[in-house]
Amino acid sequence: MATSWLAVDPGCSFTLQNLPYGVFSHSAGQPRIGTAIGSNILDLAVLQSKGLFQGPHLRQSDCFSQTTLNAFMALGRPAWTEARARIQALLRADEPALRDNEELRKAALISQSKAIMHLPANIPDYTDFYASREHATTCGTILRGKENALMPNWLHIPIAYHGRSSSIVVSGTPVRRPRGQLNPDSNAQPHTAACKWLDFELEMAAFIGGPPNALGQPVSTAEAADRLFGLVLMNDWSARDIQKWEGQPLGPFTAKNWATSISPWVVTFDALQPFRCEAPGQEATSPQVQAYLQEPDRHSFNIQLSVEITPLGNTTPTVITRSNFKHLYWTLEQMVAHHSVTGCPMRPGDLLATGTISCDGELGQGSLLEQTMGGKQAVELEGGEKRTFLQDGDTVTMRGWCEAGGVGLGFGSCTGQVVSAHP
Amino acid sequence: MATSWLAVDPGCSFTLQNLPYGVFSHSAGQPRIGTAIGSNILDLAVLQSKGLFQGPHLRQSDCFSQTTLNAFMALGRPAWTEARARIQALLRADEPALRDNEELRKAALISQSKAIMHLPANIPDYTDFYASREHATTCGTILRGKENALMPNWLHIPIAYHGRSSSIVVSGTPVRRPRGQLNPDSNAQPHTAACKWLDFELEMAAFIGGPPNALGQPVSTAEAADRLFGLVLMNDWSARDIQKWEGQPLGPFTAKNWATSISPWVVTFDALQPFRCEAPGQEATSPQVQAYLQEPDRHSFNIQLSVEITPLGNTTPTVITRSNFKHLYWTLEQMVAHHSVTGCPMRPGDLLATGTISCDGELGQGSLLEQTMGGKQAVELEGGEKRTFLQDGDTVTMRGWCEAGGVGLGFGSCTGQVVSAHP
Ligand SMILES: [Ca+2]
Ligand SMILES: [Ca+2]
Ligand SMILES: [Mg+2]
Ligand SMILES: [Mg+2]
Ligand code: NI
Repeated sequence: MATSWLAVDPGCSFTLQNLPYGVFSHSAGQPRIGTAIGSNILDLAVLQSKGLFQGPHLRQSDCFSQTTLNAFMALGRPAWTEARARIQALLRADEPALRDNEELRKAALISQSKAIMHLPANIPDYTDFYASREHATTCGTILRGKENALMPNWLHIPIAYHGRSSSIVVSGTPVRRPRGQLNPDSNAQPHTAACKWLDFELEMAAFIGGPPNALGQPVSTAEAADRLFGLVLMNDWSARDIQKWEGQPLGPFTAKNWATSISPWVVTFDALQPFRCEAPGQEATSPQVQAYLQEPDRHSFNIQLSVEITPLGNTTPTVITRSNFKHLYWTLEQMVAHHSVTGCPMRPGDLLATGTISCDGELGQGSLLEQTMGGKQAVELEGGEKRTFLQDGDTVTMRGWCEAGGVGLGFGSCTGQVVSAHP
Repeated sequence: MATSWLAVDPGCSFTLQNLPYGVFSHSAGQPRIGTAIGSNILDLAVLQSKGLFQGPHLRQSDCFSQTTLNAFMALGRPAWTEARARIQALLRADEPALRDNEELRKAALISQSKAIMHLPANIPDYTDFYASREHATTCGTILRGKENALMPNWLHIPIAYHGRSSSIVVSGTPVRRPRGQLNPDSNAQPHTAACKWLDFELEMAAFIGGPPNALGQPVSTAEAADRLFGLVLMNDWSARDIQKWEGQPLGPFTAKNWATSISPWVVTFDALQPFRCEAPGQEATSPQVQAYLQEPDRHSFNIQLSVEITPLGNTTPTVITRSNFKHLYWTLEQMVAHHSVTGCPMRPGDLLATGTISCDGELGQGSLLEQTMGGKQAVELEGGEKRTFLQDGDTVTMRGWCEAGGVGLGFGSCTGQVVSAHP
């Protein structure tokens, strides 16, 4: 396995096989595009300005001299593959161009500890799917009982709703407990108060790339692979009590439009190839899924996921969820094909979240709603504190990582602390 | 009443009292910002480059030398009021600065017949409300019967869902009948086909302006007035058969993300002041709406609205709907306050649609779903053709106009023709 001339600690997320893209700033400068390697960031604007990208797809581009990744995302897969190969080559132990050029190294390498991370892209539209069968089943059981847990359309449609892009924030941003309209007893008068049933949702989200499809022109599952740029971790913070009162008939609105956190480093699908695995069979959909949802190359990725809660003043996090991306019933390609079946344009920078990623098993539930069966069974944290929903001061941290055949990479973390509501 | 030195035909939408903002292009040039006056467009970039905006809020701005209105929208009400006063003065019969400067007139005035209209803004996020009590009642009756027509939350919450901004198009754009997943009988297998229950929805939509509120910081009903830039007509094209199958539990998704048409000229709230009127009383909400929805200055606007259908090859349009903005139960200020109650950032260029604007009376229903009671009673068009839902070739045209005390203005039209589905 190739290694870098730059030190990469064992277990570090940002190996030579990863090379995720992100937007950072330092010393009060403008946001810049970089890739993470070990504990450093390689400034790609510096490399591009020095003429180090001379391949056919990047030679004439200023895609890295931008404050967001949208222009690079728009270029499409040939440019992405070319950029990755070039960056990997420049960092490889046997390549002297950057290794032996002290001046360039000084200009292009920044310690992650000195950088502030920003949202990786301007997000024109954000969509949240509901693609985990285990999650949909548990939520349905809480709401409608075991017999009617899955809605009749669930096995046929990758169910989704349009989300709010203005409240997507980068990992580390404090998250204020929202006030909103509540009616926990459903038949009494509503009131306005701070959310009491504050929850997280363990999700991942894909950034769309490539030239946008025209209005009226669907993207097939085969074409979808080239529209998928990369993946981040996502915490879809949810106000369950607000959701309960507002959610019918048009779906969640203020319950989910006040904060959605994502990890700052976008791991590309090129980097994820070694971790491809089978996606769940869809035999449950009888006779089979609609033709536009069938896939020439159905696959998923083996991405281990965890969620930790750390109460204020506590130094020991409690791992409360362990799940895996591979359990998702609907693949990202199916999500893109369904999203665009009616001709909806998918634009570079659009974000498609998977929905809560749950699986079977004691820690398999990707939200407190599921872990506590609707707030009925408290979970115990290290040190003895109990939680049905999140309390002020709680920090929620999500992690994701892949390992196969000695190759590993990580997504870093997606973290946020709950701060108390406005009075 | 002041008149312009430019001819404005009687009954024309674009009077000296209107002065809506739009984005146009001509002769294959870049999109430019202008205001409509009579049958002309006044190019505001030309006026700004000639130094004709010297008031304190615009003197140092290049807000009109942009390809969208977002920068101007972001400046806020003092700049909007200053711009309007200045443009109105330059066009007034007694003001020679532009009237007597032939060179400037030639550079700044373009016939609307030579211009192509574009979307007025980049729309970061689009939201569709459900604010007409008559619409919600009729839809609820069709779905759940008369007794449970209004959901228990409807009188307490301006119900809304996040929509898709990528498929918002300007008036005149042909609209392709979407294909999608259908299951009209609900218990049989779904199938994939062209939508058969294609519908329009008569709506209006407000563009948000002013500096964005920070994440976590709600906008009050009192503050909302200064966040409302202007209004357009909207046709929220809807695939009712797709909506029926996908719509639960998370709301409409592919049924409404394939085309949403808006009129190109944004009529400002400054221009609408002469047409203020009372908004419906909310005594039905017992004891009263929540404090954050109460208004220091509750009001609506008297805006007459119509919808025409013109079948292919037919020259006589049939007016199928007559309604009025003033019937909406929830005001725009209440929509902004509710949207942001949990702290959702509202950004310049965001679009808030009212939902279908229906009222009592024979032609009061703002969609075919309502006019035909779910497709059960066909409506007859001039010339004898019948419709339950839209057919290929049908052109749907929405109009809006205001009149009071001899002052009038119009919204122009929002139009679109249905083209046949992809095979
Ligand atoms: Ca979610
Ligand atoms: Ca609507
Ligand atoms: Mg969210
Ligand atoms: Mg629409
Ligand atoms: Ni958006």
